[in-house]
Amino acid sequence: MPEINSVKFNADGLVPAIAQDAENGEVLMMAWMNRESLELTLSTRIMHYWSRSRNALWKKGATSGHEQSVVELRYDCDGDTILAKVHQKGAACHTGERSCFFNILLEAD
Amino acid sequence: MPEINSVKFNADGLVPAIAQDAENGEVLMMAWMNRESLELTLSTRIMHYWSRSRNALWKKGATSGHEQSVVELRYDCDGDTILAKVHQKGAACHTGERSCFFNILLEAD
Repeated sequence: MPEINSVKFNADGLVPAIAQDAENGEVLMMAWMNRESLELTLSTRIMHYWSRSRNALWKKGATSGHEQSVVELRYDCDGDTILAKVHQKGAACHTGERSCFFNILLEAD
Repeated sequence: MPEINSVKFNADGLVPAIAQDAENGEVLMMAWMNRESLELTLSTRIMHYWSRSRNALWKKGATSGHEQSVVELRYDCDGDTILAKVHQKGAACHTGERSCFFNILLEAD
């Protein structure tokens, strides 16, 4: 995995990861990965994050069954953000919503 | 703008903001907003960020002309990430690429 060295983790050892539905392009959630969760995501093709609230490795769907299998992983121009296109089982959000972004701050014209 | 109080800024006073192409769903970039840039984004419907490298308010496209006009703004379930659907003029990325996410870490099967 040579490219993983192009990813820049922040002072806390974390990088933000955006999960996007591979089928319809919907942005599902944003969470954080440390190096271990990124390595596990690459090796298993199942999304692993770092839970900042629990301070623990977090295999998405481990308890809910709402796994995200990875279709493609990208990183941005300066290497400090990950974009994952995923197949989402069930809901991405712990509230039961498909996407975490269900709150509208400014509506479409 | 009552809903802005639902947005949680981090210890540095910043919140990550994902910009997504309103036309085709492509994720264009991720950058940071402070409260002022979010307020300006809401009032002008043009994306404003906070540049962590320049430590300054950053009206996207102010020098390049590559403005992002806001179609819709959302925030996530725990209020700590913004999702903006935008009309992107020209390239979102400073490299000239349409999206900042042009580096592939793991290819589609």
